[in-house]
This record gives sequence, structure tokens and C-alpha cells, in this order.
Amino acid sequence: MTCPLCQSHNETILWQNHHLRVIAVHDEPKAPAFCRVIWREHIAEMTDLPPQQRDELMNMVYRVEQAMRQVFQPAKINLASLGNVVPHLHWHIIARFDNDACFPAPIWANAVRENAFRLPENWQAQIATLLHQTE
Amino acid sequence: MTCPLCQSHNETILWQNHHLRVIAVHDEPKAPAFCRVIWREHIAEMTDLPPQQRDELMNMVYRVEQAMRQVFQPAKINLASLGNVVPHLHWHIIARFDNDACFPAPIWANAVRENAFRLPENWQAQIATLLHQTE
Repeated sequence: MTCPLCQSHNETILWQNHHLRVIAVHDEPKAPAFCRVIWREHIAEMTDLPPQQRDELMNMVYRVEQAMRQVFQPAKINLASLGNVVPHLHWHIIARFDNDACFPAPIWANAVRENAFRLPENWQAQIATLLHQTE
Repeated sequence: MTCPLCQSHNETILWQNHHLRVIAVHDEPKAPAFCRVIWREHIAEMTDLPPQQRDELMNMVYRVEQAMRQVFQPAKINLASLGNVVPHLHWHIIARFDNDACFPAPIWANAVRENAFRLPENWQAQIATLLHQTE
């Protein structure tokens, strides 16, 4: 099976280098304030990476978290590396709001309400700018 | 409100130092192969920690992941730091199996079957031993 994360297709890329890319995620209606950091190499687990590359990946996750906190002022940030469906290392960074579809449950639980917040229309550009500023 | 993670009550502690503790999690029937790393200080987000402490926490997460891979030989490891209910920094490390209750969905989704695997009875002791060996 072709891995859907090995190549970038129809992605909104906010930042990238030769090891990883940061994208804005648009396919999860329960969580519209959602970014993903995708490691370029096709490996499954954090402990498949040498320590220096684990650090590089997590430092990018923290930069995205910091930028999302600044842009969204969320109630909480959720971080997750799951990969059960696509075992290619990637991190979900999700801004949560106390009036979002699932709060306080994880976004993978059943929705309990409709999202009742509005995001800045240009949030992707704001986050991309912040990521380039913190290089 | 008293934070339930600021003090350790009825926990199976596998490893600890003055910054963090590692526990075996028993309260999630959908995910019986489950450990948690709990940062001792009451803070909410990874980016509330200084970089050196982020690294210390994640290095512990990786040690737990490595030990769980060795003991459980899982299909996948799931890592998550959510904290919407209890905003005190902690990491979930979950071993997933292709015949577990929710696979390949996250454990917070609805169960689609009963767990069909058996864990080693002494898995907590095995993981604790491995964590002490990798100090």
C-alpha cells in the first residue's frame, strides 16, 4: 500500500525543511484549529528515531504549540502521535476550546455540541509567519 | 478544586524521581496496556516548561515507550498529552494491538470489539525492571 504521508498531496504547508513539514489540517470538522508535524522518513515510532532527530521533531512540535497558543489563545493544547491507521510518524497539535465539539473529551470521542467559536480567517498565515520568525 | 495529579493516590508507581513519576494505568478497560508519565509540578502545557525539562520529560516518555515495545510487542504505540479534564502535564503511553477494543481508532473512540489479547500477568514488574535498567 502506498503511504499517504510519504508524499505531500493537497496539503497546506506552513513550514518545512528536509526532515519534516508542518501542515494545517482541514479534514477534522470537530477540530478546525489543528496542525500536524509530519516526519519525512517513513518510520513508525519515536523510538525508531535516533535521539537527535527525536529532539528535532519535538522542538518543531513545541514551536507549533507556541504559535497556536499565541494565535488561538485556546483553553488547552492537545498533542498526540497515534499512527494506527497510517504508521508514518506524525504529530497532531490541536487547539481546544471549552465550547468546542467534544470538550473536555478528546476530539476522537463523540461530539456533544456544535463548535461555537470562530477562528481568525488568516490563522494559517499567522502561524506560518510565527514559525518563520522563530527559526 | 484539588488537582488529582498533584498528589499520588492509589497509583502503581513503576519509576519516579523528584521531577516526575511513571505509573501503570488501570482505569481504562479499552486500553489495559497503558502507562502514564506525570510531571510533578502543576503546569498545563509542554511550552510552560523550560527546554531542559521538556527534554527530561520526553526522554522518560521514550524510555517507557521502549520498555512497552519490548514487553508487549504491540502493533503501535500511541502517545498523547491532552489534559482537558485535568490540566496538569501528563503523557499517556498506550500499547495498541490489532485486536484491541478500538483499533485502529484512538482509544477514546467507541469500542468496536472486546479486547482479544492477553497481557503478561507481571507486565508492570517487567516494565519497572526495564526502566530501572535504563537509568
